[in-house]
Amino acid sequence: MSNSYGSLFKITTFGESHGPAIGVIIDGCPAGLTIDEAFIQSELDRRRPGQSKITTQRKEDDTFKILSGIFENRTTGTPIALIIENQDQRSKDYGHIAETFRPSHADYTYEVKYGHRDYRGGGRSSARETAARVAAGAIAKLLLKENGADITAFVSKVGGITAPHYTQLDLSQTETNIVRCPDPDTAAKMIDLIEQVRLERDTIGGIVTCVIKNVPVGLGEPVFDKLHAELGKAMLSINAVKGFEYGSGFEGVKFRGSKHNDEFYNEEGRIRTRTNFSGGIQGGISNGEDIYFNVAFKPVATIMQDQTSVDKHGKETTVSGRGRHDPCVLPRAVPIVEAMAALVLADFMLRNKTSRLHR
Amino acid sequence: MSNSYGSLFKITTFGESHGPAIGVIIDGCPAGLTIDEAFIQSELDRRRPGQSKITTQRKEDDTFKILSGIFENRTTGTPIALIIENQDQRSKDYGHIAETFRPSHADYTYEVKYGHRDYRGGGRSSARETAARVAAGAIAKLLLKENGADITAFVSKVGGITAPHYTQLDLSQTETNIVRCPDPDTAAKMIDLIEQVRLERDTIGGIVTCVIKNVPVGLGEPVFDKLHAELGKAMLSINAVKGFEYGSGFEGVKFRGSKHNDEFYNEEGRIRTRTNFSGGIQGGISNGEDIYFNVAFKPVATIMQDQTSVDKHGKETTVSGRGRHDPCVLPRAVPIVEAMAALVLADFMLRNKTSRLHR
Amino acid sequence: MSNSYGSLFKITTFGESHGPAIGVIIDGCPAGLTIDEAFIQSELDRRRPGQSKITTQRKEDDTFKILSGIFENRTTGTPIALIIENQDQRSKDYGHIAETFRPSHADYTYEVKYGHRDYRGGGRSSARETAARVAAGAIAKLLLKENGADITAFVSKVGGITAPHYTQLDLSQTETNIVRCPDPDTAAKMIDLIEQVRLERDTIGGIVTCVIKNVPVGLGEPVFDKLHAELGKAMLSINAVKGFEYGSGFEGVKFRGSKHNDEFYNEEGRIRTRTNFSGGIQGGISNGEDIYFNVAFKPVATIMQDQTSVDKHGKETTVSGRGRHDPCVLPRAVPIVEAMAALVLADFMLRNKTSRLHR
Amino acid sequence: MSNSYGSLFKITTFGESHGPAIGVIIDGCPAGLTIDEAFIQSELDRRRPGQSKITTQRKEDDTFKILSGIFENRTTGTPIALIIENQDQRSKDYGHIAETFRPSHADYTYEVKYGHRDYRGGGRSSARETAARVAAGAIAKLLLKENGADITAFVSKVGGITAPHYTQLDLSQTETNIVRCPDPDTAAKMIDLIEQVRLERDTIGGIVTCVIKNVPVGLGEPVFDKLHAELGKAMLSINAVKGFEYGSGFEGVKFRGSKHNDEFYNEEGRIRTRTNFSGGIQGGISNGEDIYFNVAFKPVATIMQDQTSVDKHGKETTVSGRGRHDPCVLPRAVPIVEAMAALVLADFMLRNKTSRLHR
Repeated sequence: MSNSYGSLFKITTFGESHGPAIGVIIDGCPAGLTIDEAFIQSELDRRRPGQSKITTQRKEDDTFKILSGIFENRTTGTPIALIIENQDQRSKDYGHIAETFRPSHADYTYEVKYGHRDYRGGGRSSARETAARVAAGAIAKLLLKENGADITAFVSKVGGITAPHYTQLDLSQTETNIVRCPDPDTAAKMIDLIEQVRLERDTIGGIVTCVIKNVPVGLGEPVFDKLHAELGKAMLSINAVKGFEYGSGFEGVKFRGSKHNDEFYNEEGRIRTRTNFSGGIQGGISNGEDIYFNVAFKPVATIMQDQTSVDKHGKETTVSGRGRHDPCVLPRAVPIVEAMAALVLADFMLRNKTSRLHR
Repeated sequence: MSNSYGSLFKITTFGESHGPAIGVIIDGCPAGLTIDEAFIQSELDRRRPGQSKITTQRKEDDTFKILSGIFENRTTGTPIALIIENQDQRSKDYGHIAETFRPSHADYTYEVKYGHRDYRGGGRSSARETAARVAAGAIAKLLLKENGADITAFVSKVGGITAPHYTQLDLSQTETNIVRCPDPDTAAKMIDLIEQVRLERDTIGGIVTCVIKNVPVGLGEPVFDKLHAELGKAMLSINAVKGFEYGSGFEGVKFRGSKHNDEFYNEEGRIRTRTNFSGGIQGGISNGEDIYFNVAFKPVATIMQDQTSVDKHGKETTVSGRGRHDPCVLPRAVPIVEAMAALVLADFMLRNKTSRLHR
Repeated sequence: MSNSYGSLFKITTFGESHGPAIGVIIDGCPAGLTIDEAFIQSELDRRRPGQSKITTQRKEDDTFKILSGIFENRTTGTPIALIIENQDQRSKDYGHIAETFRPSHADYTYEVKYGHRDYRGGGRSSARETAARVAAGAIAKLLLKENGADITAFVSKVGGITAPHYTQLDLSQTETNIVRCPDPDTAAKMIDLIEQVRLERDTIGGIVTCVIKNVPVGLGEPVFDKLHAELGKAMLSINAVKGFEYGSGFEGVKFRGSKHNDEFYNEEGRIRTRTNFSGGIQGGISNGEDIYFNVAFKPVATIMQDQTSVDKHGKETTVSGRGRHDPCVLPRAVPIVEAMAALVLADFMLRNKTSRLHR
Repeated sequence: MSNSYGSLFKITTFGESHGPAIGVIIDGCPAGLTIDEAFIQSELDRRRPGQSKITTQRKEDDTFKILSGIFENRTTGTPIALIIENQDQRSKDYGHIAETFRPSHADYTYEVKYGHRDYRGGGRSSARETAARVAAGAIAKLLLKENGADITAFVSKVGGITAPHYTQLDLSQTETNIVRCPDPDTAAKMIDLIEQVRLERDTIGGIVTCVIKNVPVGLGEPVFDKLHAELGKAMLSINAVKGFEYGSGFEGVKFRGSKHNDEFYNEEGRIRTRTNFSGGIQGGISNGEDIYFNVAFKPVATIMQDQTSVDKHGKETTVSGRGRHDPCVLPRAVPIVEAMAALVLADFMLRNKTSRLHR
């Protein structure tokens, strides 16, 4: 397993969906950072189930508790341990998934890989694990705030409904609606679609776009740990993600180089580019322009319909959908994408401290 | 910097475009693997400049030399060092790039990050570094061959010209043409387009698709090192890559879950899925179906045209294209994508040895 | 900070002496290992304060709680989180150490390094952190037991009182007395000395010897991660340790090579050595003979006497000893040494799975 | 295998004794460091065989070549590759060791671990590997010099002949004699002893003491990567090392705490300790006092005498000493100890850049 992420600002998450608790250790956060616990909770609340009519109606309050690393409200440089107790650990009737592999879930692959698994609620493969990421990401955001960087994600697509390009949007409007799309008209259509999908007992995918402003020039480590390579890995490590693109992305393959190249100019002493197909990253290193990228989420695998499958003995069987699940993860994925982006940037900010002998 | 990749099968590359040599150390290759040097050279030849009329006409023969780790033709478990001497290290006239930042290159970001850089031919940011990856990837392929896995990449798109889905192609035909697209008609169109682009002194992007067959069930490490997350990072670490998607990818976001889920069935004792939108990976772990993914490459930044830019003193200036460059990197990117995929899989194959107490 | 240890069997500890809890995450324990919770508790009890008249009389019951990674009594391959709640977190009067640097403690260096520290009870630098290691080490021991290796440590020296060489002792007697020295006569003298030192309101150091039997040939990784190099690091990372030697150790420097070399012979098909000055390790790799090493502990820094020191403003002052502390850590250090040895061996046992292509 | 050392200033060594070359990659050296190639060579010369009558008479000139990472005499932040070609790679008659396990060498353990090994000259287990460490260590020393730290090692013991404590010696005299002991009288006796041992066709061990002055307060990372724990590991990873102690070391176990504690005082605004039994390290972090430690080397395993052993088929046989070997490695070990100390300190100096938010 590999439950750690990051090089200098390093997190390790643990916990199963129906165990006593989930949590995260942050090792490497510099000493002296003031911790705003209300902010951490507000980030967890953005990810929390049951927050609106278009998310799962399951209620979990996701209250966190800090066990170490913070003294008199400031970090001490020692590991920060944060846990979120699971409220409902009763061993319910899991007969329907204890032995049967749910389609497009991790049941089958975990069974083969480990031979023994906690099947309750998906165990370790449950998206519940992302709550730990959001908590850690909140602390990374506090660290980044000291340096000015600003991260905003939003839902840019649900099914076939697409929002305008981020440069045409007022990103401060993202949290004004339950689908987290800053364009009110698009948001309304997305909400309608999600409600319709839910009535059909089905699910739908979409895209989260993330924009990072005010990143200092120089973050990212060639050769293998390019800034966009780590962003890509971080996003692809989120449950249900199927694709990542930054800057011009997949569209960029159709361009000629003469159009795609971002020419430099001098804007009152600051070197800037006229276009930004590079997405703020050149040679794997931030160039000071906006970093922006798209993250594709597949439709949720848990549907309220019967599906054919096999059980662990190889016998063909039927899996029936039950429980309360999200018809579309996109609205709740927004804070997760932001959290992972914050973790990547915080790590690179620390790593960059040693790139030069003299500054 | 971070010039290492992999956890147990670990490579470290080094070298600048115009230094004495580039190379790679492989640390963690199990002892007892027979090394086929001709195969390593043939892989390097697939990446080599000057191999056809649609690649750069620059001549480099990319002959490698093994310095350690292999005795009597078999690996000993000690680090394998491999170098490729650079043939042309003369300090030519680099006046045009020593001081000036080429648009959409890494010149500016390296300058800010490091304060001192080898600007000759792009130095460390040159795509020449990928030769070291291809050499290491060839050894990873030899290791994978012992376990049956088979990796094939091909060019599926150049500009607006797209090949059919891989399931409709005979991948054994990939090497029969210079653009490395297994569909002859599409290949001809791609070649025409690249030649036209070259005449226009411009460049064009495209997509490499990679298919991996016969991967055992169980490779990939939840939570952060999901198989597709590492594949994504590995691909995004290749120069000029702008996006990665696997399985249904960005298209998948439009699907309903009821269509997207891959139902399981029992095929003569082997558990399989009827569809494969999962792309052979569920919960970050291989499920035995074909793994397939797309890698988007932007158009090459070096064009044979004048572009405006700034120099290191902030003065606006003109950069003129010169030298011999690729109008389209896609054909030469195919073996690089395969090499990185092989490195990822070899690493996960070793990592999987400790997932269970008893096998 | 670096609060993780191990490469494949990897632990991360957290927690301060007077925070809500301390704990450990084990990432990389193979799935399918049966967990004996009573055994883990018994190991913690061997380290626990207040266990005898020659240890501190402070009472802590060190009850652990498992938060994740174990299902139906067996490991699942997911991270195992274990916490021990601190019983007494009241913010007592720490005026005497909040501002003043205790001699030969970590107060001063933490203050300079981090600028902000939890001074209560030494915070993170408290030996309380080793409880987390003992808990993790207990799980490592369960893993090793599956492979036959057997670890026994004992107190071989307190002040000037020295036990005979381990080969002349019955190590099964170690737990029969409170000082954990298997030789009854030496044990009695050690106990007398420690009691006398306590009456003098002073402290005393000593040596723990550790013997590991039935280690398979081949554990340890050249070049930098030699088996004894990792054992040395692991031991030196324990609070108060000042030295490490294995096999002939510091005595061996006086030998001639002709006497020191361990000649091989064939014992009924098994290759063995006639002497064992190598301490069971050759070239950094276990050779199947007993591994044995010594760990030197300095006298405890907290003494019940007045000492001159300076405060954080540089003013000279007096530090008075107070509270209940160990006059000698050696008896309680025995399970810690064993735990760290178990963690090292468990890690190398997993790492060795990939040394050869074919077994 | 694990052929890398260091966390941010990271080296990877490669190469066998009789392969084409050995070498090292340094990844993480900050950009902008001026490289003095003559200094690197002078360090290699201190380790070189054949340098005096008391070392092996084997001639190797150990000339290095830089392949990457340095441009116009300064580091660029990219990986520095350095190779040393082996001068004599002829496959001589190795019949005597190809099949037979030399006592107290790594032949047997490598054979079992890897199944296939380069037996010529010990292959990877040869002390020749340390040349790569010395070259890398020289660059680490250049980096440390920018920060003022100063490392000096010397031979403090050969067999039973012991030099006075370092505080009573003029360390600047170390290089004035061939045994590298700064006390002339002791040096003369050591030389006599080594010559006598050589005549007896035998070998002898000893101790290298290392002293590091002017280390800034704050280096070292609790909990597991304590400064002395990493120094210990680094030293124990050197061939033939059997023990490590720092500060009061093994002697300190006899002290009472009241004598052993180092009281703080204020020396003109700088916080200092009156004694230094702590060896300059408290809680795993440097406190600004001299760091000093001892490294025990066993007698060289290769002796010019017949020894009984077994071959790889388990048959008992005789190994005859031949070739030109060191009767005592201590003089040549001095630069190796310094190199490893420099690598540890350089790494911690970089790691310490992120311990605090504000400096």
